[in-house]
Amino acid sequence: MKKIIFDTDPGIDDAMALLLAHACQDIEVVGITTTFGNASIENTTRNALYLKQKFGMHAEVAKGVNTPLDQVKTEPATLVHGDNGLGNIELPDQINTPLSPLIAHDYIVETLKKQPGEITLVAVGRLTNLALAIEKAPEIGKLVKEVIIMGGAFGHNGHTGNLTPFAEANVYGDPLAADIVINADWPVTIVGLDVTQQTQMSNAYLEKVRTHSEKYGQFIYDITRFYAKFYNDDLGLDGFYVHDSSAIMYLVSPEIFTTKQGHIRVITEGPAKGHTLFKGSNRVFPIDEWATAPKQTIAINVEPQTFNQRYFDIICGN
Amino acid sequence: MKKIIFDTDPGIDDAMALLLAHACQDIEVVGITTTFGNASIENTTRNALYLKQKFGMHAEVAKGVNTPLDQVKTEPATLVHGDNGLGNIELPDQINTPLSPLIAHDYIVETLKKQPGEITLVAVGRLTNLALAIEKAPEIGKLVKEVIIMGGAFGHNGHTGNLTPFAEANVYGDPLAADIVINADWPVTIVGLDVTQQTQMSNAYLEKVRTHSEKYGQFIYDITRFYAKFYNDDLGLDGFYVHDSSAIMYLVSPEIFTTKQGHIRVITEGPAKGHTLFKGSNRVFPIDEWATAPKQTIAINVEPQTFNQRYFDIICGN
Repeated sequence: MKKIIFDTDPGIDDAMALLLAHACQDIEVVGITTTFGNASIENTTRNALYLKQKFGMHAEVAKGVNTPLDQVKTEPATLVHGDNGLGNIELPDQINTPLSPLIAHDYIVETLKKQPGEITLVAVGRLTNLALAIEKAPEIGKLVKEVIIMGGAFGHNGHTGNLTPFAEANVYGDPLAADIVINADWPVTIVGLDVTQQTQMSNAYLEKVRTHSEKYGQFIYDITRFYAKFYNDDLGLDGFYVHDSSAIMYLVSPEIFTTKQGHIRVITEGPAKGHTLFKGSNRVFPIDEWATAPKQTIAINVEPQTFNQRYFDIICGN
Repeated sequence: MKKIIFDTDPGIDDAMALLLAHACQDIEVVGITTTFGNASIENTTRNALYLKQKFGMHAEVAKGVNTPLDQVKTEPATLVHGDNGLGNIELPDQINTPLSPLIAHDYIVETLKKQPGEITLVAVGRLTNLALAIEKAPEIGKLVKEVIIMGGAFGHNGHTGNLTPFAEANVYGDPLAADIVINADWPVTIVGLDVTQQTQMSNAYLEKVRTHSEKYGQFIYDITRFYAKFYNDDLGLDGFYVHDSSAIMYLVSPEIFTTKQGHIRVITEGPAKGHTLFKGSNRVFPIDEWATAPKQTIAINVEPQTFNQRYFDIICGN
């Protein structure tokens, strides 16, 4: 059983990724830690509790902080995810599911300490919670099984950014946290736009999910109407790129991804704020802030058809 | 006749580029403005005066400032160019050639005003002088014919940096100046590592230059011994990459270069200080400091054999 803490800002594609993890028989979602980004921390936390309640998850939900490490806030991505973060579907006024008494980063630290070597952190939003956790308790670097991140863009297949020409939104939203998390002493795999923009789910595909998954189909169809409209208006796509589910899919089926190892730094300010730079060679330059960075892994290719088939099969319980 | 002001920090490859311009019958070197980098401003200015005297140039020599705009000095590249900037060849104690009474950036402004539309600025060092000139007198943007820069690296052919993994030395040495010059309202073409590292001059080639060019051969051979040794020690090359002469060659034979147009920004601080980012598409992102940048030109490919043949022919007076 692959145990995870899912760090997330639901978020439409966050919800789709969480449902993929919940539906997957090999994955146990131990905890859900919330972060800001696709919506405010209040809305993402409400949405996490709602998803837990609606789909009968056992995961504990812990609320994260509401500002990036550099205190430079960006607006919630309501244009992409709707005002409520879930594509403006109707949500209940009251959700009767308790929140963890611990703040997200403390929840991460405590849970990793209780289950050493057992838990993978899968983070699909700003990396603020993970950065606070590893800074507060560097020893969790040895306790975590693996860290899988959806974020960044390394230029493969021409994908270099979505919020700016050279930055992906999760990293842009807290670049200091990203640099800390990626350069901490734990094994990180980054699933960036290089691969998440290789996979698309069309509206016809989502129709098929709707009719074939009794448990999740209608819900996924409903929350993605707003998201698909944004992608159509903004980029002319039929359907959308598959960002956050790519991180869960990497956990489920790493064999459909190609990866590379190297040193990574994040640009934390200026016009390229949030830009991620990957150095794959071992050559040491006269001035070289990469040479001392740990080697981490980035995904550079994925098999999109296998990806979509596998998502469909898991969500439909095949 | 192509008239130029050559902004330079000689520097071994600077000297080779200056001799190429001087030897070329289509080029008139009107002025030489000096900058720091390969050596101190004192040494690069002394070397410019020495080259002028030794080879009977008419160009006026104007000395530049000695610090980058951000006041963050880097060490002179004595490991590459020798302590005296010309590969430690013996230099005369006294050079009896007068310096312009104007400081480099004022010399640039005054000369462009006197000969509107006539002069191309070819800059092969830090861009401090050009930045000071265009900031002091933005009207020179309309008076210059063209600006050709050796600097930067845009990732073509895997070339991303030489001083750091993601920065070329000239841009790293004054990134603020580079961002100002590249984003000023004048036509800029950048010849970066993408192409300068495509062309190599081998030691056998330099032997041939020595024996075939009566005027320049022995001198070029002598100054490049130190340079070739550095390249051999550091990168295992036989001979060296052809940086600064590529800017002059672009002026002589633009047809052997392939170029692209787009928006460019320079990273001015942090681990990727000096990194140049080129956006070739017209897509405007939600946050986009490239969208308002002017379109400039970068060279992405060159024909190295034609390059070396042409350099040989011009230097040998063929």
